[in-house]
Amino acid sequence: MIVTVTLNTALDVTYRVPRMLPHASHRVSDVIERPGGKGLNVARVLAALGHAVTATGFAGGPAGEAVRAGLAAHAPGVLDALLPCAGPTRRTLAVADAASGDTTQFNEPGPLITAPEWAAFLERYDALVGSGAQAVALCGSLPPGVPVGAYALLVRRARAAGVPVLLDTGGEALRRGIAARPDMIKPNSTELAELTGSRDPLPATRDARRRGAHAVITSLGPAGLLAATPQGSWRAAPPRALSGNPTGAGDSAVAGLLSALAEGLDWPARLARAVALSAATVHSPVAGEFDPRTYEEVRGSVSVTREPGQ
Amino acid sequence: MIVTVTLNTALDVTYRVPRMLPHASHRVSDVIERPGGKGLNVARVLAALGHAVTATGFAGGPAGEAVRAGLAAHAPGVLDALLPCAGPTRRTLAVADAASGDTTQFNEPGPLITAPEWAAFLERYDALVGSGAQAVALCGSLPPGVPVGAYALLVRRARAAGVPVLLDTGGEALRRGIAARPDMIKPNSTELAELTGSRDPLPATRDARRRGAHAVITSLGPAGLLAATPQGSWRAAPPRALSGNPTGAGDSAVAGLLSALAEGLDWPARLARAVALSAATVHSPVAGEFDPRTYEEVRGSVSVTREPGQ
Repeated sequence: MIVTVTLNTALDVTYRVPRMLPHASHRVSDVIERPGGKGLNVARVLAALGHAVTATGFAGGPAGEAVRAGLAAHAPGVLDALLPCAGPTRRTLAVADAASGDTTQFNEPGPLITAPEWAAFLERYDALVGSGAQAVALCGSLPPGVPVGAYALLVRRARAAGVPVLLDTGGEALRRGIAARPDMIKPNSTELAELTGSRDPLPATRDARRRGAHAVITSLGPAGLLAATPQGSWRAAPPRALSGNPTGAGDSAVAGLLSALAEGLDWPARLARAVALSAATVHSPVAGEFDPRTYEEVRGSVSVTREPGQ
Repeated sequence: MIVTVTLNTALDVTYRVPRMLPHASHRVSDVIERPGGKGLNVARVLAALGHAVTATGFAGGPAGEAVRAGLAAHAPGVLDALLPCAGPTRRTLAVADAASGDTTQFNEPGPLITAPEWAAFLERYDALVGSGAQAVALCGSLPPGVPVGAYALLVRRARAAGVPVLLDTGGEALRRGIAARPDMIKPNSTELAELTGSRDPLPATRDARRRGAHAVITSLGPAGLLAATPQGSWRAAPPRALSGNPTGAGDSAVAGLLSALAEGLDWPARLARAVALSAATVHSPVAGEFDPRTYEEVRGSVSVTREPGQ
């Protein structure tokens, strides 16, 4: 069983409008609500790949109820181990403009997590990690009230239990978390530049390894992934750039890395799977889901090449 | 007891953002949720004026629950006689731009009301109207599924029970409703022009009377009200234009008309109260609420002048 942690779950809402005009009034033709937050996306992809997966974190208020109901409806393979919180789970709103194809995004702040809620989460986390988990993914931002060193604590506890742990976050939460030596981090180029001060992907990826992560897998957008690991460095690229919506592509890459790790595959095979799932997510007609046909088609033809040096 | 009907209640949500930019991502600093829909606003003002008031209509889904909870918290004087519906109550979202002071509005569609839900509403309506109601207000848009002639039916049933009925809506719902001869309608100048084809307020107000309403009270924005009634025509204006947010000013005017009717006041006194409440709502620091001090100050100095002719 793989555990995904989403401390700051979200209800992802999409409004379709004919044309988005600032300071005007808009009749919304279509409202779509989906469970969101990186760790829940990772869990959904893992379940679609046939892995046993448990999702934990917090869900509160009406949006939290909608997240749990949506998870049960759209991802029945994911075991819901979310904990209640008194504060309301945030909504993220994407206003999709039919005229331009662009979206305008509004992100609510997360719920304030109280000390007893955080203590209840730690108890749940230890129980999940201690019950034979194959891997743990720690994903996304920290809601208000959760200590900024939270991920460092969760990384240490997973490692003490002998469970491989992947950290996918940014900013101060990543900076603090990396010091606790997670098995993997998966920054994008912005997060990597924030962490290391460098915009040159290969040196920055290797620098991030020296800061504590055992392996660093940097996502390069349509160009694929760059990995620095104890077994060497690789660059993995899709056979061609696929057009589409990049929402959730990074979460699919995390699911690819974790599922391949759980299956005992080596680094080139893990990276090939992660790149194929990312590409199949970009190419899917539904934002954040992967297209199984594209996945099958791409995964045999991802190029994985070794980078010289350490 | 006064009854207000809000078939299409709403959860009014306000997002505060530092600066609204189309196609950008925004961190929302502040989320405010309030029960909304014209009839609920009217009920809240009536309760604040000390009248017994019952609010009915539909509330469904998480937003419907939030509407009912908000009503209990912010308007404890309003008796909640809303009926459940399976579809979700709509949200209206106002994105308030701190840089420009302007707002961008997004209005979700209302819930689809089923035939059994509509039948249950009619039963509740008849019971409320038949239990000694002093007046009924029918307010706002019709949600999908409710017959377009709904207000005509509700007007006829109120009049058959001998209860004065005010209709405050627009478009086809107003056109159909007016034919059933409501005691009052309160169009704004846009709704009046849609109904009559004329933008000249006095002739259009009198024309609307000839289409079936016993009295027509047209809101002229900051200039006050224009009324054509069986007792004659009046123009009512505040002593000075008050600056502020016009949200809810029309609903406060409706509450003023109904409360004064229930107290047996004559037309000039009804209009003076409606204008003073409107002005006090525009001038309030909280959108949609009226400022009691401004109300007390203005209500003695509203000018009500008779318009010659019929």
